[in-house]
Formats: sequence, C-alpha cells, structure tokens
Amino acid sequence: MSDVGVTTKKNEDFSEWYTEVVLKSEMADYAPIKGCMILREHSYAIWEKIQEVFNKKIKATGHNNVYFPLFIPESYLKKEGEHFEGFVPEVAWISQGGNTELEERLAIRPTSETIMYATFSKWIRSWRDLPLKINQWCNIVRWETKATKPFLRTREFLWQEGHTAHATAAEGEAEVMYALGEYRDLVERYLAIPVLVGKKSDSEKFAGALYTTCMEAMMPDGKALQMGTSHNLGQNFAKVFDITFIGEDEQKHEVWQTSWGITTRLIGAVIMVHGDDKGLVLPPRVAPIQVVIVPIPFRGAEPETIAAKAKEYFTLLKQKGFTVVLDDRGEYTPGWKFNHWELKGVPVRIEIGPRDLKQQQVVMVRRDTGQKTAIKEADVVDATEKLLEEIQHNLYAKARVDLENKITTVQTYQQFQETLKAKGGFMKAPWCGKATCEAKIKDDTGATIRVIPFEKEPPTSPCVVCGEKAEEMVYFARSY
Amino acid sequence: MSDVGVTTKKNEDFSEWYTEVVLKSEMADYAPIKGCMILREHSYAIWEKIQEVFNKKIKATGHNNVYFPLFIPESYLKKEGEHFEGFVPEVAWISQGGNTELEERLAIRPTSETIMYATFSKWIRSWRDLPLKINQWCNIVRWETKATKPFLRTREFLWQEGHTAHATAAEGEAEVMYALGEYRDLVERYLAIPVLVGKKSDSEKFAGALYTTCMEAMMPDGKALQMGTSHNLGQNFAKVFDITFIGEDEQKHEVWQTSWGITTRLIGAVIMVHGDDKGLVLPPRVAPIQVVIVPIPFRGAEPETIAAKAKEYFTLLKQKGFTVVLDDRGEYTPGWKFNHWELKGVPVRIEIGPRDLKQQQVVMVRRDTGQKTAIKEADVVDATEKLLEEIQHNLYAKARVDLENKITTVQTYQQFQETLKAKGGFMKAPWCGKATCEAKIKDDTGATIRVIPFEKEPPTSPCVVCGEKAEEMVYFARSY
Repeated sequence: MSDVGVTTKKNEDFSEWYTEVVLKSEMADYAPIKGCMILREHSYAIWEKIQEVFNKKIKATGHNNVYFPLFIPESYLKKEGEHFEGFVPEVAWISQGGNTELEERLAIRPTSETIMYATFSKWIRSWRDLPLKINQWCNIVRWETKATKPFLRTREFLWQEGHTAHATAAEGEAEVMYALGEYRDLVERYLAIPVLVGKKSDSEKFAGALYTTCMEAMMPDGKALQMGTSHNLGQNFAKVFDITFIGEDEQKHEVWQTSWGITTRLIGAVIMVHGDDKGLVLPPRVAPIQVVIVPIPFRGAEPETIAAKAKEYFTLLKQKGFTVVLDDRGEYTPGWKFNHWELKGVPVRIEIGPRDLKQQQVVMVRRDTGQKTAIKEADVVDATEKLLEEIQHNLYAKARVDLENKITTVQTYQQFQETLKAKGGFMKAPWCGKATCEAKIKDDTGATIRVIPFEKEPPTSPCVVCGEKAEEMVYFARSY
Repeated sequence: MSDVGVTTKKNEDFSEWYTEVVLKSEMADYAPIKGCMILREHSYAIWEKIQEVFNKKIKATGHNNVYFPLFIPESYLKKEGEHFEGFVPEVAWISQGGNTELEERLAIRPTSETIMYATFSKWIRSWRDLPLKINQWCNIVRWETKATKPFLRTREFLWQEGHTAHATAAEGEAEVMYALGEYRDLVERYLAIPVLVGKKSDSEKFAGALYTTCMEAMMPDGKALQMGTSHNLGQNFAKVFDITFIGEDEQKHEVWQTSWGITTRLIGAVIMVHGDDKGLVLPPRVAPIQVVIVPIPFRGAEPETIAAKAKEYFTLLKQKGFTVVLDDRGEYTPGWKFNHWELKGVPVRIEIGPRDLKQQQVVMVRRDTGQKTAIKEADVVDATEKLLEEIQHNLYAKARVDLENKITTVQTYQQFQETLKAKGGFMKAPWCGKATCEAKIKDDTGATIRVIPFEKEPPTSPCVVCGEKAEEMVYFARSY
C-alpha cells in the first residue's frame, strides 16, 4: 500500500477523492483492460458479506442458487425485441472458439433472461412446478461507451440476478415487492445507506419489463445512484419463450415472471456515502475487519507485557465472534498503523500503551467520529459490541440527514434548474406523466426521473415543465 | 422431474447411466449452447458446500478471495510462451464490443495466471509484501474440441484458482503441498472419494509450471479422473512479468509462485463414484438435503396426527442443524416420494406410519444400503447424527475398496495392455523415466501417467516398455 494517505479533500474534488480512496485503501485496482477493474480482498470481502446476508434471506423464502452459461446465442437474445434493442449496443461478442469460427455469434451475458427462460419452458409443465424461484451470482458484461468508474460503471461487474415464475399476476407482483424489500433491508440495515423506493418511468424501465421498481440513493456530490432494481416482467417473456403450465383448472396458462438484481456497485456507494478525508469508513456489519488492536510500546516500558496483553485481547475478541486484527508488526510505527487502518475504514481501533497497562484499561477509538474513550479491561467485550452498533446506527443516521437535505421540493421549472445547478440532489417535482416533459428535462438538465413513489403524493402545483395538470410528485436527479 | 426413474443399469452402460442420473436427478441440464451446461440447484448447492469448506480452510491460513477480470489481452496471454502454446487452441476470443471492433482481441480467461501476474508486479515491491496469497472463485472457458460431458468436460465451468507468491523456493514448495493437502482432505473427508496423490510427468504438467502435483480418483468404468492440481511455477512467470522484490538483504529477487485449482467436475466424480441404479447417493457432509421425512397416512388411521408428528420431527431436526425436508405433499403417493428422494440421493429417509405412531417410533432408511431400522422417538436426533456419519464413512470405505481393486501392479507390457483392456483401472508399472516410453504407451493404449508417487517406490522389474532400468513405479490409466 502507498505510504501516503488520501491527499484530496472529499468536499473539494469528489471524483478525484473517490478514485484516490478506492486505490489507496486497496479496495480495487485498475486492470490492464480498458473499463475493467480488479476487486481486491478488501472489497471482495464486503461482497462476500453481501452474499452471505442476501443468500440467507432468499433461501429462507424458498429461492435456490443455480448457474447458467455465460454465453447466449444471438438468436435467443433477439427473441424479445425490446429486450434485444435495449442491450445490443453493449454486448461483447464471441465469434471464434479455438481455431474455429462460430456458426452463430455468442453474446457474453449482459443479463440472463433469455438463456434462462428458454429453459424455463422445459422445466415448467404443471402448476406443481410453480412458483419457480432461482437466483444466480455471476459476472456480467456490458460494453459501456460512457466513462467508466471503479465499482459504479465497469465493463464487467459481479451481481446477483433473481428470476421467478408464478401462476398468477398477483404472486408475481408480490415477488417484485418482496425482492425490493429485501434489497432495502440489506442496503439500509447493513450498508447503512438510506434509499428512496418506487417505480421507474416507462423510459427508464428494464428492456422487456411491464414495470421496474427500484431503490435510489444520493451521493455526496448530488448525483443519484441506482442501488438495485426489481422488475415485473408480466407475461412478456412467457409469450416469447412459450413458458406455459397446465393449471389446477386443467387449462393452459402463461406464467407471470419477475427478475431482480444488485451489483458490486453497492460497494462504490459505501465508499462514497461514508468515506471521509482520511479514507474509507466501513459500516461494522459489512466491514471485513471490525476491530484493529495496536500495541504502543514505549522505550523503558514493558514491551513484552504490552504485546502479551494485546494478544490476550485479540484472542478474546476473536472468540467472541468479532473480526479482529492484531497489528504487532515491528517494522511500522503506531502512527503509521493508525493512518493505515483509518484509510482501510476499520470501525474500531483499540490502543494499548504503558499507561493503559498500568490502569488496566485500553483506549478505544471510533473511526466515524474519531472519539477516544478509555475502557476498563473487564468491559472491553461489551464496549466493543456497543461501539460497533453505535457506529452502524450513526453512519445510517448521518446518511439519512444528508439524503433529506438533498431533497428539494420544487414548484417551477426555473426553481428546478437553479436548484439542480446549485446543489444537485433530488428535485421532488410535480409531473404530468407525459414522456415528452420527462425528455425535455433530460435534454435541458441531464436529470431523469429516478423514482416515482408507490403511493401517489398529490401534487402541490401543475407539471413543472408543461404547466398542465400534474399527476403526482416524482423525484428527478442527475445520476451515475 | 421425470416420473420415470433411472432405467439404465450402472454396470451395463455406465456412460448412459451417468447421463440419465445427471438429468433425472435434476443435477444439471443441457444448455442451448454446444458443450455448455446448466448447474441446477441440486448440484449448485453441493458447489456451495465445497466453497464453504474450502474457504474456511484457506482463510484460516491467510489466503484472501479476490476477483480479476474475465478478459485477458492477447498480448498478455502470449508473454509466457509455453503457457500460450498450451492454452491457445482452447481460447474463446472477443473481437467486438457493442458496435466497435476491438483493437486487440481479448481472450476469455482459460486460467488467470497472466492477467493476475501482470498486476502482482505492481503490488509486490518489498519482502514486507510477501507472501501474497489470493484465491478466486469464477467461471473459466476452454473451447473443448473433445466430446463434452456434464460436469467432467464442458466449455465453461466453475472453479477456484489459488495464486501465491513467496520470497523463497522452499516456501513455494510448501505452499504447493499445502494446497494439495487441503484438496485431499476436502475430497476424501467430505466427498468421500479416495485419491492417489503425486506429481505429473513433464508431458502432463501445467503449461508454464516447473512441476504439477495432482490427485487422481478412479471411476467405476476404470477411467481415472483428475480431481485437482497444484502447480509449482518456480520463477518462470516472475521472469516474464518482472515480479521482483527487495529482500531483507536489500537485494532484488524474483518471487517464487504457485497456482492451484479444483472445479465443478468434482460433482461429476461424486455422481459417478457413489451413485447406483436408483440414482444419486450423496455423502451426508455435502448433501444439500440430509434427511427427508415422509408421513404415510393410511385410510382409517389418523392422518392429522401423523402429519403433526412428522412436522414435529421436522422442526426438531432442523433446530439441531440438519438440512431436512418434510414431504407432506398430498398430490404424490409415499411410493412416488421414496423413488423421488432416492433418485436425488438424500442419505436418510424417515417414514412415519400409523403403526410407528402407535409404537412411538419412526422407520429410518439408509440410502446407501437400503437398510431399514425402527428408532424410538426419544432417539431420533442421536440416531440421525450417527446414521449420517455411518453413511459418510461407509461411502468412503466402499470407494476405497473399489480404488484398491482397480490398481494392478504389472511387470510386462503384455500384462499392461491385457489388464488395461480387460478391467481398466490404474496400471502400477515400472518406468524408466523417458518421455518416449510414456508416449508409446499413450499411442498404443490411450493410457497416460496419472500419478508419480512423491516417494519413489523401488521398481520390481525393468521399464514396462523399453526393458531398460526402471526409475520408479508410476500409475498409468485411461482418463476423462
């Protein structure tokens, strides 16, 4: 790792700060392929936590993990026209295997609906085969032409994609909301990032879906980040791929489908939302390392006794189930270690020096606030647990305030444009529901509708663009 | 699932039996891309168990998971000449992303040495950065031209690849043996498959390695299956990718490297080795479902009481940490359910009928032997635990006997050829160490050296091919 800490201030050059934190904290590195990245152990461990939490949720509700091929024949991708049109500009194509030219080009999956649903039609015959609820964790390739950014936009990324088929429209709808609810719980309670949830407008929905639900978070630079989507596919793909079943009524029906996904971009959101000028600040529930213990030997004091005591705490905390590192390396100073583990975002640091030894205490330092507290030896386990919980809640509470401060209710288009320019964030604005007004805003300002709340909020004034009767209040923002 | 069980006998048409079991037990399905397969939930759950067990092992010894890109620029793959020559016939190439022709073709990774080691040279500067020990779980593509077979040989498969760099040759050697040891433990103690371990000959080693160590298992049809490999890369890649470090001696040195992998083919081995004419037989330690409870209601008896008691056992066993399914579906008969769960390889079945209810007992049925035992209600938990352990050990013991019976020590080439033809298996034969003799055997019989034992066993006679002085006893076999 670099010996120099983060040199850019978060509130001075956010984009540069982000890149610096990503690289110096060793979350990721650039790969020798344009637009691709390497997830190093410090970020991959967060992804593993996300997998653990989410797998537990979906397995408890009868979803099973599977693995479908990376390749999709071009003819399959083409079957659902809207879907193909949506993805084809971003598809990477295989045309040669070994020394042989392929007869049909193969797409590297940009998403797996088409390859999966061709098989669903074989697997589903009777109402007894429903619901079918599967999920897969895999890599996805979308050949981005926009500027890429580690975690947020890369040509390859990791994700989970859930795919379900149901006997009724109502079950499909319930599943869409189920997945969105689990996403929200994961993001808010584990990643400590508050989100807005709702539907996408038709122009922003998933290619091939009836409608798309989503959660959106707000980044410190005033741009929104889509954190996850859950799609109601209705019977669109069932018709194209002939996924039918014989119901209990002995009649043939088409299934109702959903698909939903979250990606490694969630890690980018964690970095952006919680990080500070010293580097990462990781929420304790997903931090790869929750506690670091740094012994502070002084000349003349008893280095062996301090070392032994530090080891004792290490063993104790490890036994209690915390992920803890004892940094007793001789080749680095305590000051260097403090900076190093702060850069890495470790929530709690425990220091043990000669005075602490004498007073049978340790000093605990919070990463989020920098606050130092002396803790008596007997209380170390309880205090660690309590502090980690406090940090988790504090990070969420702070992010919640930030989010609320970045929502501005606007009544006129002038106000919309001025506020967006001045501070960014979400413009909560009355909208008539017409795609033309939505398109005008995008053309004029770059902002799109990020979320249409599930419960229509009565508009306080006419449509912010056309001045005609507004249908509801929706959230616009520029986004990643 | 198909209503018809496995119709082919394992000892009559092994290859057909295998395919039938794979498909009917719903372990896998064919994909609409030649040579690719779908891992369904029943096999993917075994892969998840393998991941869980192996992650625990390697994390405890300081290895961390990471994720490197799927794509490798052609120029990188070419850097180590022997490596490139070894893999290029099997590489799938991307030449188009979206609507753009790429300037340089990208290989879909057939293995990740070259992409990783280009980065290692950035990460490693000082002895403080060593050892570097990483691992990744990912998909791999090798454009096979030979006939493919589910799990054993497919154009895409899942694997784990460990990659380490060390300051000394001795540390590298120790790491190679460490990985092989963990593989052996995983395969023998969890998958219940005994293996032979040793080195590969030069002609069978990994392209670019100093030497390759491996474990080999024997399948019931007399063909060997390579179960995992651990390579000593020496300094070959370090030279090519300029991976150097400043040692404690303040001199510049090249690192010593290892790489090692196991794949989803292990699941194929489990099917082949343990399966029988009724379908899968899964080792309890990796079985996705360990226990199935089938209530057997009879007319005139008390169906509600039986159902309630079955549920009680289900809850109890689940609480105790067993993975258990209660099959109380009304639309299938008990007989159908027995066949279904036997096909799926569930180690233990618990039946509860009216007579059992009256006598406060259940009937436990072992999948491996078919043996039925009445167990008193109070003993159900203990008996389940004991039975699962017994099945685990019995499967291993049986496979061990099968392996031993398929090793024939041969002294002449005639004996070699006759035995190989008559019963297959491993030919334990004296070998002079020359590649020409090895090549002749391959040409004549299709058999290759699978394992050269680590400890040289003094040959009992001259080289089986050339009749000159033999160096050691090695194991030949035909293989998958």
